[in-house]
Amino acid sequence: MKFDLKITDTTSKARAGTITTDHGEIETPIFMPVGTVASVKGVHQQELKKDINADIILGNTYHLYLRPTTKILEKAGGLHKFMKWDRPILTDSGGYQVYSLSGNNKINEKGVKFKSHIDGSMHFFTPESSMDIQRSIGADIIMAFDECTPYPCEYNYAKNSMHMTHRWLKRCINHLEKTPEIYDFKQAFFPIVQGSTYKDLRKQSAEFIASMGAEGNAIGGLSVGEPAEELYEMTDIVCSVLPEDKPRYLMGVGTPINILENIALGVDMFDCVMPTRNARNGMLFTAHGSINIKNKKWEDDFSPIDEMNITFVDTEYSKAYLRHLFVAKEYLAKQIATIHNLGFYMWLVREARKHILAGDFTIWKNMMVKQMDKRL
Amino acid sequence: MKFDLKITDTTSKARAGTITTDHGEIETPIFMPVGTVASVKGVHQQELKKDINADIILGNTYHLYLRPTTKILEKAGGLHKFMKWDRPILTDSGGYQVYSLSGNNKINEKGVKFKSHIDGSMHFFTPESSMDIQRSIGADIIMAFDECTPYPCEYNYAKNSMHMTHRWLKRCINHLEKTPEIYDFKQAFFPIVQGSTYKDLRKQSAEFIASMGAEGNAIGGLSVGEPAEELYEMTDIVCSVLPEDKPRYLMGVGTPINILENIALGVDMFDCVMPTRNARNGMLFTAHGSINIKNKKWEDDFSPIDEMNITFVDTEYSKAYLRHLFVAKEYLAKQIATIHNLGFYMWLVREARKHILAGDFTIWKNMMVKQMDKRL
Ligand SMILES: [Zn+2]
Ligand SMILES: [Zn+2]
Repeated sequence: MKFDLKITDTTSKARAGTITTDHGEIETPIFMPVGTVASVKGVHQQELKKDINADIILGNTYHLYLRPTTKILEKAGGLHKFMKWDRPILTDSGGYQVYSLSGNNKINEKGVKFKSHIDGSMHFFTPESSMDIQRSIGADIIMAFDECTPYPCEYNYAKNSMHMTHRWLKRCINHLEKTPEIYDFKQAFFPIVQGSTYKDLRKQSAEFIASMGAEGNAIGGLSVGEPAEELYEMTDIVCSVLPEDKPRYLMGVGTPINILENIALGVDMFDCVMPTRNARNGMLFTAHGSINIKNKKWEDDFSPIDEMNITFVDTEYSKAYLRHLFVAKEYLAKQIATIHNLGFYMWLVREARKHILAGDFTIWKNMMVKQMDKRL
Repeated sequence: MKFDLKITDTTSKARAGTITTDHGEIETPIFMPVGTVASVKGVHQQELKKDINADIILGNTYHLYLRPTTKILEKAGGLHKFMKWDRPILTDSGGYQVYSLSGNNKINEKGVKFKSHIDGSMHFFTPESSMDIQRSIGADIIMAFDECTPYPCEYNYAKNSMHMTHRWLKRCINHLEKTPEIYDFKQAFFPIVQGSTYKDLRKQSAEFIASMGAEGNAIGGLSVGEPAEELYEMTDIVCSVLPEDKPRYLMGVGTPINILENIALGVDMFDCVMPTRNARNGMLFTAHGSINIKNKKWEDDFSPIDEMNITFVDTEYSKAYLRHLFVAKEYLAKQIATIHNLGFYMWLVREARKHILAGDFTIWKNMMVKQMDKRL
């Protein structure tokens, strides 16, 4: 993996760059649609490529480990071949889902014991097994196995957890050195900064992570319920420590506004279930604010879903038609809304990049943040 | 509407023709995908057009009347504009769903009182109101309001019901004469032959229907549980009576084999929820037999869903991947299977047409029926 930083904005800390992987280039800042279990819910791979035009998607290690299992993924020749997606993929480490989805989990220095949310079977993830699983899945970018602390989190718990995440990181790196890639392309490894919402811990963790000299770095443990101001404060501290010549990935963030504000603080990569999950609930994001398409006010509004026509669904279907599909609980409702929202998120990060390159990012960002903060 | 009969097969009663409507041509024999409530479940309109290449789709009057309602459809300028489908549409009369979906219904000479399956509200359909609703929906082909008898059905009930259907037919025709189209295109009206599984009633009903001189004629009350042999026997009797120069539509039929056998008996048009409903349950139809894709045997079969590559999903995705999506209950599973099955049904009727025109329909049909009667 290679990262070329093209430009850093002069009126903010926003950056534009290019990540090169064996499955192609990623122009940053970038948003990565979430394809949890080898599918971005409701979207064909060709729509993801031609209509939404995603540079990279994310897969979840926890889900893929349980289904279809690493045995099947290895037989298929890895996740790219299994799901027929030839652009880059990033996988998380499985840690986050173990804490959030598995009701029954027990963390200790060795790793995390957890119960499958599917069949109740018991499993054990360690830094080493997470690396093995991510080798089998075969994403272009793989993540360190960390503990993601909840919000709020007591200082001492956050501190101890951060140090364990750091010790786990060393185990991940040691294990990766002993286990090369199993497919014919390279996998880049990103460590994760933790430290909850404590400035000193975030700084300390960022310094430790930076010292590892990884190909890219991630910020974890945010967007877990803290106010936006705290999120921005933590991102700012961490970005000021992380190396400039490596991409920075803020995990699990966020709303369109969160994304623009964090781009302004120096983040290059984002992922979030919000555009897809909210789409399935009838919430559309647009450049002029959000729309609850289930609202009765759209019942006889035959205007296009979004005049901007970013993806074909925007002008192909009307608001009244999409509302009808949601009311009638038709599958197509979720499909249309998902393509719209992902198309909009991709447009947003691409437009941000254009304005960073053009030198007017901050003016544009402030205008957009104001515009998008409305309910239509 | 115009019907040009191009050819009638010499070794069977199969026919190839062309129906011309104000929304374009329909090459017969044809299969019409079911778009119940203004959407073929899980399929974008552009996929229906470009990938599945449907000549005509079906809408359900009962569902459209309840949601989005005729008020909204009229405001939209009719169903074509509402759902953005510019090819022909056929609507049923609402009768069938009133009997099958609404638990609570009461039939008398005037019409049918029923309870909405959505909110329990009471409604009343008459031959006249069904015509009004179908005018508001604005399909290219609209259907008579009939009573669809169940199977088995006592002779006297079948006979009385048939006569009531005939009386209702006259009321439909009278009402249509007084109420012209409300959009800027023509609507053709098809009466429906009833008579359960009684040869004399079917013959009598077909003669009555034929005497109406309608632009096309339909056969109803079949595919309701009777054995295939009885279905074929009734179709044969009815087709021998119905005029040759008008299209014949067999309602609600059927399996790929049913369709070929009925084409051989002189049927031109079909509709059925089977390809779409079975797709959503993981049942795929192919030229070489049916596939239960949820079966464990496909777990590590990375071959294409269907080597025939009728639609893009067939070679884009593997059997193992599609099975995984069904097991993981992903939306994309139903989307892929639906496009596959509808693509296959369209291929089947188009291939039938080719063989009718080429003069080797019966040989091909017998080969296909044998081939498709397998479980893969
Ligand atoms: Zn985390
Ligand atoms: Zn009927």
